[in-house]
Amino acid sequence: MKWGRIAVEGRPLRVELRGGELVDERGTRHALSGAQFLPPVMPPNFYAAGLNFRAHIEWANTRGGNYKVPEQADIGYRSNNALIGSGAEIVIPADSKGPVEYEGELVAVIGREAKNLSEANALDCVAGYTLGNDVSERSWQKSDRTLWRAKNSDTFKPMGPFVVSGIDPMNQTIEVRINGRTVSSYSTRGMIFGVAHYLERMSRYLTLQQGDVVWFGCDGPTLPALKPGDLVEVVNDAIGVLANRVVREALPTKP
Amino acid sequence: MKWGRIAVEGRPLRVELRGGELVDERGTRHALSGAQFLPPVMPPNFYAAGLNFRAHIEWANTRGGNYKVPEQADIGYRSNNALIGSGAEIVIPADSKGPVEYEGELVAVIGREAKNLSEANALDCVAGYTLGNDVSERSWQKSDRTLWRAKNSDTFKPMGPFVVSGIDPMNQTIEVRINGRTVSSYSTRGMIFGVAHYLERMSRYLTLQQGDVVWFGCDGPTLPALKPGDLVEVVNDAIGVLANRVVREALPTKP
Repeated sequence: MKWGRIAVEGRPLRVELRGGELVDERGTRHALSGAQFLPPVMPPNFYAAGLNFRAHIEWANTRGGNYKVPEQADIGYRSNNALIGSGAEIVIPADSKGPVEYEGELVAVIGREAKNLSEANALDCVAGYTLGNDVSERSWQKSDRTLWRAKNSDTFKPMGPFVVSGIDPMNQTIEVRINGRTVSSYSTRGMIFGVAHYLERMSRYLTLQQGDVVWFGCDGPTLPALKPGDLVEVVNDAIGVLANRVVREALPTKP
Repeated sequence: MKWGRIAVEGRPLRVELRGGELVDERGTRHALSGAQFLPPVMPPNFYAAGLNFRAHIEWANTRGGNYKVPEQADIGYRSNNALIGSGAEIVIPADSKGPVEYEGELVAVIGREAKNLSEANALDCVAGYTLGNDVSERSWQKSDRTLWRAKNSDTFKPMGPFVVSGIDPMNQTIEVRINGRTVSSYSTRGMIFGVAHYLERMSRYLTLQQGDVVWFGCDGPTLPALKPGDLVEVVNDAIGVLANRVVREALPTKP
């Protein structure tokens, strides 16, 4: 099953993709083209692995980073204010010096409350998988004490377009395209800590809730930087294409 | 106005405190004694200043910390899974080596969507103020790459009991008692970055949403550590008493 959410007359509607059309819970059909996608969920808790692929860590360290390969699966956080759906604009804040870069990621969407999972049964609580673009402002990532505006400025977390069940999260190719050109492609097989291991460990200490999301990090470099006008797409064969145009915020006019 | 949420037959009810009784939106009265408090809100975004008082930073550095006084108001995050109301139990995970400590904090509850606030008008978007206990497992705070289980294990974020409007957030005394004995008392006047400054800066990059909460950190030491059986109370004259009993999780039985 492939499902998502669209806005119709300002209201969120849950829809399934069937035969190239979007069908809502009343059976009403909506054209795929022109649909205004929302993030598939607004999560009660927004988890992100951050560093979870070796080639990404090594590359980040060639450009001034000082990251260690994590020794245990410690989960981090992002924030809902930054979520947008496929088709919405990524807005670079007016005073960003950049670079602002993409990170194309696999995202697990939790389907039911879960605590004390084992690795063997951990994936049972996952409703399905979607795509995320962990847009990152690298100068703020260095200068700030937290990742608040580096990772969580409004519009910096595109997610979608669909949640897909029945796929193997540990054998997916995640590709990123800018203006149609492939700039990144990696397999989720390279995760340092896999999806089941993360969920098992997290659920020892916290109760996973329906609608929670876990973003699993990206591999390799994240170049070139995003420029206003760019169309950035995160692509997976099963899930689809998470597509967002980049714009720059106008400087606020002082009254 | 003083309002909060209680659970009645498993359902959340918003209530106001009037003349020593809790009154719900239909006018039904509920006894204060025995009421099962919930967190006043489940926030779309859960912000926390973390380090925001000098004497707390200096003290943390006397016991092995290496914290700098922040040069700018960078906000951090906590997670909703950990929220509990006044009266619920703080559960120390079975494998925690501790110490587990309290941090009594002032919390701003956002009342309406807001972006690009000025310091002069920033407090207008605040619905009111409540109390938070930023319970912290200090060994995990040192060993883990993120604050996930150190700060966000289930039950580690008591919040409440009421949200109070019309008070000056920069002139509140926050007290912590363990088993009736005062162990901490400080004034919010000592914040490194005040409430209005934080909200102004945050809202340049992110849209504050109705129900968001911002926890403002604590001052001074946070000793003694919490032990099973302790009653820990965060107290403010205007807001009330956020009271939680501490227990230790039983080790999970292996099937």
